[in-house]
Amino acid sequence: MTKTVGIIGGMGPAATCDLMEKIIALTKAARDQDHLHVLTDVNTAIPDRTAAILHGGPDPVPEMRKSARRLVSAGAELLLMPCNTAHYFYDDLAASVPVPVLHMPRLTAAVLQKAGIKTAGVLATDGTVQSGVYETALSNAGVRAVYPDQAMQRQVMRLIYDGVKAGAVPLSDIPVDEILAGLRAQGAETVLLACTELPIAFRALGLTDGCLDPTRVLAFAAVRAAGAETTAPDPW
Amino acid sequence: MTKTVGIIGGMGPAATCDLMEKIIALTKAARDQDHLHVLTDVNTAIPDRTAAILHGGPDPVPEMRKSARRLVSAGAELLLMPCNTAHYFYDDLAASVPVPVLHMPRLTAAVLQKAGIKTAGVLATDGTVQSGVYETALSNAGVRAVYPDQAMQRQVMRLIYDGVKAGAVPLSDIPVDEILAGLRAQGAETVLLACTELPIAFRALGLTDGCLDPTRVLAFAAVRAAGAETTAPDPW
Repeated sequence: MTKTVGIIGGMGPAATCDLMEKIIALTKAARDQDHLHVLTDVNTAIPDRTAAILHGGPDPVPEMRKSARRLVSAGAELLLMPCNTAHYFYDDLAASVPVPVLHMPRLTAAVLQKAGIKTAGVLATDGTVQSGVYETALSNAGVRAVYPDQAMQRQVMRLIYDGVKAGAVPLSDIPVDEILAGLRAQGAETVLLACTELPIAFRALGLTDGCLDPTRVLAFAAVRAAGAETTAPDPW
Repeated sequence: MTKTVGIIGGMGPAATCDLMEKIIALTKAARDQDHLHVLTDVNTAIPDRTAAILHGGPDPVPEMRKSARRLVSAGAELLLMPCNTAHYFYDDLAASVPVPVLHMPRLTAAVLQKAGIKTAGVLATDGTVQSGVYETALSNAGVRAVYPDQAMQRQVMRLIYDGVKAGAVPLSDIPVDEILAGLRAQGAETVLLACTELPIAFRALGLTDGCLDPTRVLAFAAVRAAGAETTAPDPW
């Protein structure tokens, strides 16, 4: 008997679908009935996480808790948050929820540690970078984090907000090659796509090689934690 | 204030994500918070619909009702079923649910009628074809339905079950061009991808031109029914 997975979604909506697709792709299944029972709450009333961390925007935790309660009431036995920045609020949320909540940055750090990686580039929102969500998780796993410089970090934010979330800027307008070169020059052995909108952009750009996708790490861990078999031996 | 949308999903899981993505793409939005609140129950305990209709397999209605109840309890004000075959059980389900359930085949027939189409090819599971779900909806809208011959219908089932659901057969192994030519020879002005796995296969094959996608019709109707603006003027 597998466990029912609950997804606190809407941060953003496209990233929620991306996680669901990765769970499907990573579950060993030959027919609909072999897949996991997944409950998803695309709760678009959750306020922007970066705005809350950096600019005194409204607190997202009350709406995240509402989603968690709805999912647990409906039967979820295990919760996921497909939003890296939201993990800044992890302790607050997890303490108020009666089922386990998987921690995407810690799971990602463990994958890097197991692979023997010493330095990883981090591409993420300003909120994730400045709040140290990945810094802490990586440093606890003995991995050094390196980041884009200020000008390139602004381009990462454009890619996430104007490119993926708003669909207002063509992805090819963003100097992604330059961003990646800057991280590699600082010694990055791999690059974390540490905002759930980034794997979507990088797949569209054909640039996923040499990157680790925390959404895929989370999907892989969820399939195993729910008690199903994975189609791959690891989340790389 | 927009309405909360509920999706009775898992029939199959990939088709559920496909509907969610089409709702996102068709919603006019510049940021996460502009998108609709969507609750999804990927209920993979729902038995196979075609097996129930044609071979005396277990009745899917009790599990569909459980999903509907979970979604309505969690706040859904409007329900969708991203599975054409499941609409064979529509009356049974809708009668037991306190919120509207959108009817994908009827919505699709209305789109064809509005476009002045007189003959449409129907690609669907044996269950959908033999139960007449589309036959009835189309004929009520004054549209004639034409179908693949027996040999080609077996290939449609292979595409759906072995190609998309099981991922066990490369999509390019199925003679899709021949299937489409057979429908056009019978006078089809357009082809309905009337199993929710087919738009996924046809997109992967680059063959969506000249087809109407009922999943997109359902997504379009859902965005409007929930009270949001659509990014396109119609679902074609």
